[in-house]
Amino acid sequence: MGYENLRLRLELLHAKVGFGDVAEIVNRFGGDIVSVETIRSDIGTSIRDVDIQLERDGYEGILKELELLNGIRIVEVSDRVFVAHLGGKISIQPTMQIKTTMDLSRVYTPGVARVCAAIAQDPQRAYSLTLKRNTVAVVTDGTAVLGLGDIGPSAAAPVMEGKSMLFKQLANVDAFPICLDTKDTEEIIRTVKAISPIFGGINLEDISSPRCFEIERRLQEELDIPVFHDDQHGTAIVVIGGLMNALKVIGKRMEEIKVVVNGVGAAGVSICKMLITAGVKHLIPVDRSGAIVRGGSYAHPMWSWLANQPQVGDRTGQLSDVIEGVDVFIGVSRAGVLSVSHIQAMAENPIVFAMANPEPEISPEEAMPHVRIFATGRSDYPNQINNVLVFPGVFRGALDCGASLINEAMKLEAAKAIADVICESELNERYIVPSIFNERVVVKVREAVIRAALRTGVAKRIPSDFSASLPEEGERVHAAGIT
Amino acid sequence: MGYENLRLRLELLHAKVGFGDVAEIVNRFGGDIVSVETIRSDIGTSIRDVDIQLERDGYEGILKELELLNGIRIVEVSDRVFVAHLGGKISIQPTMQIKTTMDLSRVYTPGVARVCAAIAQDPQRAYSLTLKRNTVAVVTDGTAVLGLGDIGPSAAAPVMEGKSMLFKQLANVDAFPICLDTKDTEEIIRTVKAISPIFGGINLEDISSPRCFEIERRLQEELDIPVFHDDQHGTAIVVIGGLMNALKVIGKRMEEIKVVVNGVGAAGVSICKMLITAGVKHLIPVDRSGAIVRGGSYAHPMWSWLANQPQVGDRTGQLSDVIEGVDVFIGVSRAGVLSVSHIQAMAENPIVFAMANPEPEISPEEAMPHVRIFATGRSDYPNQINNVLVFPGVFRGALDCGASLINEAMKLEAAKAIADVICESELNERYIVPSIFNERVVVKVREAVIRAALRTGVAKRIPSDFSASLPEEGERVHAAGIT
Repeated sequence: MGYENLRLRLELLHAKVGFGDVAEIVNRFGGDIVSVETIRSDIGTSIRDVDIQLERDGYEGILKELELLNGIRIVEVSDRVFVAHLGGKISIQPTMQIKTTMDLSRVYTPGVARVCAAIAQDPQRAYSLTLKRNTVAVVTDGTAVLGLGDIGPSAAAPVMEGKSMLFKQLANVDAFPICLDTKDTEEIIRTVKAISPIFGGINLEDISSPRCFEIERRLQEELDIPVFHDDQHGTAIVVIGGLMNALKVIGKRMEEIKVVVNGVGAAGVSICKMLITAGVKHLIPVDRSGAIVRGGSYAHPMWSWLANQPQVGDRTGQLSDVIEGVDVFIGVSRAGVLSVSHIQAMAENPIVFAMANPEPEISPEEAMPHVRIFATGRSDYPNQINNVLVFPGVFRGALDCGASLINEAMKLEAAKAIADVICESELNERYIVPSIFNERVVVKVREAVIRAALRTGVAKRIPSDFSASLPEEGERVHAAGIT
Repeated sequence: MGYENLRLRLELLHAKVGFGDVAEIVNRFGGDIVSVETIRSDIGTSIRDVDIQLERDGYEGILKELELLNGIRIVEVSDRVFVAHLGGKISIQPTMQIKTTMDLSRVYTPGVARVCAAIAQDPQRAYSLTLKRNTVAVVTDGTAVLGLGDIGPSAAAPVMEGKSMLFKQLANVDAFPICLDTKDTEEIIRTVKAISPIFGGINLEDISSPRCFEIERRLQEELDIPVFHDDQHGTAIVVIGGLMNALKVIGKRMEEIKVVVNGVGAAGVSICKMLITAGVKHLIPVDRSGAIVRGGSYAHPMWSWLANQPQVGDRTGQLSDVIEGVDVFIGVSRAGVLSVSHIQAMAENPIVFAMANPEPEISPEEAMPHVRIFATGRSDYPNQINNVLVFPGVFRGALDCGASLINEAMKLEAAKAIADVICESELNERYIVPSIFNERVVVKVREAVIRAALRTGVAKRIPSDFSASLPEEGERVHAAGIT
């Protein structure tokens, strides 16, 4: 999964060296020149910025060879990924400029005292008079970050900031990263509860399994704002959405398919739960220790829960023992666990979602000739199962209707909404999930989440586009401030 | 301390009523028409927005009388203070737009993984590769908010948001409000420590005394980022700055003056400490129970500390027993505690800082004829002692040099810097502190804080304007990302 990461600023002495020499060296090390910009040029020399995409490490070799060339000078080496992160990726902006003492007296002392008093009198006013209404905490303890594992809260920050960027750009949600310097379940719960008053929602992120289940459950029970562990439900929602479309393509129904979910951690558990909610009757969860079977007993609380579900099969064994005749393989595990012979044992028109990161359970090149529909977590193949399709719209919807939680109905509607962004005529084997840049995604997911929240009674207010009978902003201010 | 707060949208039927009728009613209830804007006008009617400033409650009377007038219709009533707070006063903004999959792969997965790994390897890189370098938490438990007392964390949020606005506008510091749903000292300490990894500094705010002392001390001991309780030190720094200038005006020196500090809570304690640091030799702290005296024993840990200082006097009694011959009265207590006869007992050229909020220890009208220099916390009289002069520059300086704490030397230099913004020729009895809109304040305070931090060895880096021998940004990226 290549991405360009090296930018070289080179000075070339034209009499001695040509750009072709540079290109040859880059090519030799497996690099690809993505762009070249001439910064300055005169009769004898030119300075150019060269962006290079590398599949694997190799920049030292490129630099060494370039230095050996006569007539070339390496002015600067930078890493475009690192440059994009310099100084952080989000900032705090005031919604207005304070220009006069009168402005100051409104937004700060003494005027602010009346606003504080109004909230003290009725805490619900925090939703109109503070940033609570539009703000989500992106909370991590840094224990399960990408493929890196337990790298700690500081090192996790760039992911949380990236997520905050996406929240804002895609759904106009204000999100702030909270990186916790503790791994203790109880202390995480206590800390998040303690800081919750300013937030309208909690997005849990990259917290390792099985602690993540307890943390989410307890926080949701003890807070009246939505708590959503994205690694679980974000992934599950987009998987279910993608699967709905995949089934449309091949003409099978949820109720009749047999599904293996390989990898029963945070994402795997939530996928299993949602599959059941979505109507799947034959489910085989498989982890390193083999299939989780109905009636089995497990130390992991969620595995025990699964073992009590009538939809879970009773066949024991490893993946190869249970894959026969299965319609759908969903992998959230690790590279290499799925083989061509596994796929050949599956039912007709096999659907494979191989979402291990960065390398899928089976390489696309190997799998594609043998499957009907193939999806990964990667952007460089068709059908990217990406939870960026989920969390912006889910929180936009939950915040807009003041949902106290995000329940199974809201998640299932969100999955349907993602599926429905692709119309029947566009739908095909290589296009079962929309692009994250498709602007209809957030709109549709938001609507679906609000609709389900209203239907299931967890919404505190009806957004104005869902009803014309609401008081105007002005009247509400009046109510809060004066009467 | 009036501020306009009422906006009326009125429809006037010209045949029946004139604007003079409106003005007469507003006037009768003690209101002042600050501005009028005509929104729409035709032959028979006009719609106008009228902003009214009210000293005291009276809007119900105005509305009732207006409704009685024939030919007038009240279209809308709003409260401009509340309108300014609607939806919150800060937002989160991405520093760049994600336009392509390539952009996404740089700021989010998969590219971000390399940035995370680099920080995991060397946590100091969080200062260049995350928002930590420029970000401060504004932390409160909502127990001592303005004059309102213990109103809780949600109701305190508008103050913290206002503070965050000022941080950004005045010093380009990103500040985020953290409102804690706990009043327990240990839990506050634990929570702030747990969320500290993403922050470059902690601004404690509106936490009641004496818990605030323990919370600040412990956090500063246990964290390596600056922790600053603004109610204590922000106030103290601007008081000392103002006092420095006041002494210049009347020609006395710190070493020779006798000072009463009335009110020995958060701000009073810090003022006493800074007065001692600034060279004051004769200090009389006075609280409700009377003067704190040298050698006395007190339950309050900071009062005990004061009783051990050689600069603290040994005369017992109430304010009226100790005020005789005093050069300076500094009040951070409550309205009405200082009388004209108190001032008359003071030494020649009395200096009175009466900073109780919203009503000072003695009204300016009463005090002014009897004092040489008078200051309050209010914007509607000369010499406003406002900690908005302090915290933006102090944190700008501390963040820029990576200070691990904000020590007494840094505070004293900050006070001098505030004093020095006013040059000798401008200085007079009614102008001892600069306006918060004076752009030199933050620049000077920042420089002073950095200079003192470098001198006292608490700075982790030398800002580029303090040295020309530093590596360039590009080189540092190179170091972080590639070598």
